[in-house]
Amino acid sequence: MSQERLLELWRPLHDLRMTRAVLEWDQETMMPPGGAAARARALATLAGEVHARLVDDALHEAALRARDAAEEGSVEHAQALVALRDVERARRVPARLARELAEATSAGLVSWQAARKESDFARFAPDLERIVRLKEEEAQAVADGGRPYDALLDEYEPGTREADLVPLFERIRAELSPRIRAVAESGVVVDESPAQGQFPEAHQRALGLAASRAIGFDHDAGRLDLAAHPFCTSFSPRDVRITWRFQEDDFRPALYGILHESGHGLYEQGLPLEWEGQPLGEAAGLGIHESQSRLWENAVGRSRGFLRWLAVPWREAFGAPMPDVEELWPALHTCRPSLIRVEADESTYDLHVLVRFELERRLFSGELATADLPAAWNGAYEEVLGLRPANDAEGVLQDIHWAMGAFGYFPTYTLGNLMAAQLFAAAGAELGDLEAAFAAGEFAPLREWLREKVHRHGRRWRSAELVERASGRPLTPDDHLARLAEQVETVYGVTVGGATG
Amino acid sequence: MSQERLLELWRPLHDLRMTRAVLEWDQETMMPPGGAAARARALATLAGEVHARLVDDALHEAALRARDAAEEGSVEHAQALVALRDVERARRVPARLARELAEATSAGLVSWQAARKESDFARFAPDLERIVRLKEEEAQAVADGGRPYDALLDEYEPGTREADLVPLFERIRAELSPRIRAVAESGVVVDESPAQGQFPEAHQRALGLAASRAIGFDHDAGRLDLAAHPFCTSFSPRDVRITWRFQEDDFRPALYGILHESGHGLYEQGLPLEWEGQPLGEAAGLGIHESQSRLWENAVGRSRGFLRWLAVPWREAFGAPMPDVEELWPALHTCRPSLIRVEADESTYDLHVLVRFELERRLFSGELATADLPAAWNGAYEEVLGLRPANDAEGVLQDIHWAMGAFGYFPTYTLGNLMAAQLFAAAGAELGDLEAAFAAGEFAPLREWLREKVHRHGRRWRSAELVERASGRPLTPDDHLARLAEQVETVYGVTVGGATG
Repeated sequence: MSQERLLELWRPLHDLRMTRAVLEWDQETMMPPGGAAARARALATLAGEVHARLVDDALHEAALRARDAAEEGSVEHAQALVALRDVERARRVPARLARELAEATSAGLVSWQAARKESDFARFAPDLERIVRLKEEEAQAVADGGRPYDALLDEYEPGTREADLVPLFERIRAELSPRIRAVAESGVVVDESPAQGQFPEAHQRALGLAASRAIGFDHDAGRLDLAAHPFCTSFSPRDVRITWRFQEDDFRPALYGILHESGHGLYEQGLPLEWEGQPLGEAAGLGIHESQSRLWENAVGRSRGFLRWLAVPWREAFGAPMPDVEELWPALHTCRPSLIRVEADESTYDLHVLVRFELERRLFSGELATADLPAAWNGAYEEVLGLRPANDAEGVLQDIHWAMGAFGYFPTYTLGNLMAAQLFAAAGAELGDLEAAFAAGEFAPLREWLREKVHRHGRRWRSAELVERASGRPLTPDDHLARLAEQVETVYGVTVGGATG
Repeated sequence: MSQERLLELWRPLHDLRMTRAVLEWDQETMMPPGGAAARARALATLAGEVHARLVDDALHEAALRARDAAEEGSVEHAQALVALRDVERARRVPARLARELAEATSAGLVSWQAARKESDFARFAPDLERIVRLKEEEAQAVADGGRPYDALLDEYEPGTREADLVPLFERIRAELSPRIRAVAESGVVVDESPAQGQFPEAHQRALGLAASRAIGFDHDAGRLDLAAHPFCTSFSPRDVRITWRFQEDDFRPALYGILHESGHGLYEQGLPLEWEGQPLGEAAGLGIHESQSRLWENAVGRSRGFLRWLAVPWREAFGAPMPDVEELWPALHTCRPSLIRVEADESTYDLHVLVRFELERRLFSGELATADLPAAWNGAYEEVLGLRPANDAEGVLQDIHWAMGAFGYFPTYTLGNLMAAQLFAAAGAELGDLEAAFAAGEFAPLREWLREKVHRHGRRWRSAELVERASGRPLTPDDHLARLAEQVETVYGVTVGGATG
C-alpha cells in the first residue's frame, strides 16, 4: 500500500516532466520563430507545476512510508530511496532560491547568446556572476553539510565526488598532454580527404537511418529530426526522439552524430517498461548515459568491423563506393588539438573537459572570480592543448552549460568515455570477436549485453556499480587510455604515454 | 486589482491548455506509433490539471470580483464574463461525472475505431449508449434549467439554440434537396479530369505553401505538416500549426485542404496579441472559426479570380501549365450526392450536417434510441441525399465526433458556411471587385477586413454579433444559398430552388 501511494503520486509528476520534454523537443526541432515567447511562458508554468509536486509534503511522506515499509534491498525499497533522493534535493532548495535561479538562468541564456554573438564576455559577466552565486547557495543547501561542489556533481551523476575525479583527470592529463605534443612534433598529417566530398542531406539521412536501424534503434518507438544542436530526449521507452545535423562536404558529423544519439536512444528504449513513470524507470545518470552514446559512436562506429559493414549502406545511400576502410580509418582517429569542444576528436576531447572541471572547481572554491574566467580559460587552453583562443566566442563563451546553471555537468562527458571503454572491453571479453560480428552486421549481441548489464536496471543501481558489476572492477581510465594510445600509435606512429600499449 | 488577480490565475490555465494542444499536435503529426500509451496518460494528467484549475474556488471568486468591479461594457467586464462562462460551465459538472465522461469517451474512441474498421455498429453501441446517457446528464447540469441540447450547442458556438437552428436547416433542406434531384435528372456530368493527373507530394506541398503564403498565413508564426486528418491548432497567435494530406492523382484535396486550414490559421494569427493568455484572447466560437476556413477555401479559393492568380504558382510547382480556368471551374463546383461528409462538395455538404443535427435532436429528446441509430441514419441519407449507405462504416460510423462525446458540434459546420457567405458578401460590398483583386494576387484587403471585423475581437463579442456588425444584418442562409444556386445554374443549367438566382 505505501508503495502504491508513492507510485500514484509519482505518475503525474512523471507525466508533467515528460510533457515538458515534449515542449522542449518541439522548441528545438519544429517550433517556428514566432513561438518562442509563448513557449518560454508555458515551460515556466510547467517547471513550477513539476517543482510544486516534487516538494509536496504528501509525496515526501509517501516516499518515507514506502521506504520504511519495504525490505532493504528490494525493488520497492529502491523505488522509495530514489524518489526520496529527488524529493529531498528539491526540498532543500528554498522556493525563493528556486525562483531566483530560474530568473537568473533565463536572463543568463539571453545575455550569453548576445555575448557569444559579439564575442564579448563582459555582456554575460554580470548574469554569470549572479548564477554562480545562486548555484553556490543552492549547492550549500543541497549538500546539507557535505561539499557544495559534490552536490552539483551529484545532480548529474549520482555519487560522483570531486575527490574521486581529481586523480582521474590527473592521469588523463599526464598521458594525453605529452602525447599531443609528440604527435605535433611527429610531423604526421592525416589525410582526411576520404571523409570529404559532396554528401547531399537526403543521402546522409538515409545512411544515418540505416546505421541507426542496424544497431537496433527502433524507429517505430522513436524518430530522427534535424536540430541545430543534436540531442536525444525521451517521452517513454516507446517514444524516443533523436536529432542530427549535417555538413554537406564531410559525412562524419552526421553519421557519428546519429550513432551517438542512437546510443543514447538505445539506453532510453531499453529502460524497463514495467517501471515506466516510476522512480526507477529512468537512466542511472548522465555519465552512464554518455557511455552508451560514446560506445556506439566511437568503439563501434569507428571500428574497422563497422566500416566493413558500412560499405553496402554507403553505396545504397550515396550511389558510389565507400572509400577503402584503411584509408578512412585514420580520418576517424585524428589527434589534433582544437579550440571547440564539440568538434574535438577522441584523443583530445577529455582535455576540453578537464579545463572546464578545473575552472569550475576554482570558481566554487572561491579561488577564481567570474571576471577572471576568460584569462583563466585562455591560459588553461594554452597550457593543456597548446592553443590560445583568439576571442571569447571560441573560448569561454562556447558552451551553453554555465548559462543554464549546469555546473558539475562537464565531468560526465569524460566519465562517459571511461565507462564506454570499460564496458566495451568487458563485452568483448565475454562475447568474443566483436569486430567480426560488426562486419557481418551483427550488432544485436552487444546491444543485448548492454540491455542486460545497463539498460534494464533503470535507476536501480548507480552508474559506478553498474560498471563494476558489468566489468568486474571499479571504474578506471585504463581501457579508455589504452584505446587512445593504440589509435595514436597506429595513425601517427607515436607511443608517448601509452599506458598499456 | 480584481482584474489582475483574474488574469494571474488565468495565465497558467491557458499555458496548460496550450501545452495539451502541443501534445495533441505532436500526436497527430510526429509521434511514432509506440508513443500512444504514454501520450494518452500524459494527456489525461494534463486534462485533470486543467480541470482542477478551472473549477478552483479562487478562480471563480476572482472572476466574480473582477466582474463586479468592472464597468459594464468595458473590456475588463468582458474578460470577467467570458471567464465566468467557462468556469461556471465546468463547475456545474460534478467531478464524478467529468471522470466518467473521460473514461467513457476514452473507451468509446477505441471501440468506435474497431467498429468502423469492421463496419459493425454493435461493437460501438454500448459505449455510445453510455456516452449519450452521460452527455444528457452533463447537458442537464450545464443547462441549469434551460434546454439540455442547447447547453451542448452552446459549448461549441456560444449562444446557439436549437430553436434558431431548426428554421435554418428547414430552409436549407427545402432548397438543396430538390435541387440535388433536379441536377441528377439533368443528366449533366461534370468533367473532372482537369483536376486530375499525377501530382507528386513535394509539388503539391509547394503549391499549397504558395497559396497559403499568398493569402497571408505567416509561416514564421506557424508551420505546415502532414496529418491523416487535417486540422489547425494554435499555441499562440505567433505559433499556429496547420496540417494537410494529399492525393497523388487529384490536386484538390491538398490545395483546398491547405486553404481551409490556412483560413483557420489566419483567424488564430489575427487574434489580439495583447490578450494572449487571457479569457478574451481566443476565437469567439467554432462556427465563426469554420467561416474563416470556408471563406478562404470556397469563396476565395474556388473563385475565377483566385484561379487566374494560381496559374503562375501552379506552373512553378508542377512545371506544367495549369488547365484553363473555365475548364477547371466546374470541377470545383460539382453537385453530387455522396455518403461521406468530409468528401462532400459545397452543394451537398449542409445536408450531411442536417442529417446529424436531426439525429442528435431526436437522441437528446428521447425520441430515438442509440440502438436504432444505424437504421435512422440510413433512412435519413436516403431521404435527404438519395443514397443509402451499404454498411455502417460508410454510414453512422464515419465520424469521430460522437465517440468523443461531441454532440452539438456538427451544426457549427453549416453555421460556418452561412457566416462565410454573409461575411464575404459584406466584404465585397465594401471592398469592391474582389475577383479582380484576387486575380492580381491582392488578398490583403480581404484579409485585413476580416482582421478588423472578426479576428481582432477575440471573444469580446459572440459570433452572431460579429456577423451582424460586419454585414449589417442578422445571420441568414440567403447569401450561402444564393451562392450555391448560382453555382448549380452555371455548372448544370439547373435553376430549381434558386433563392435569389
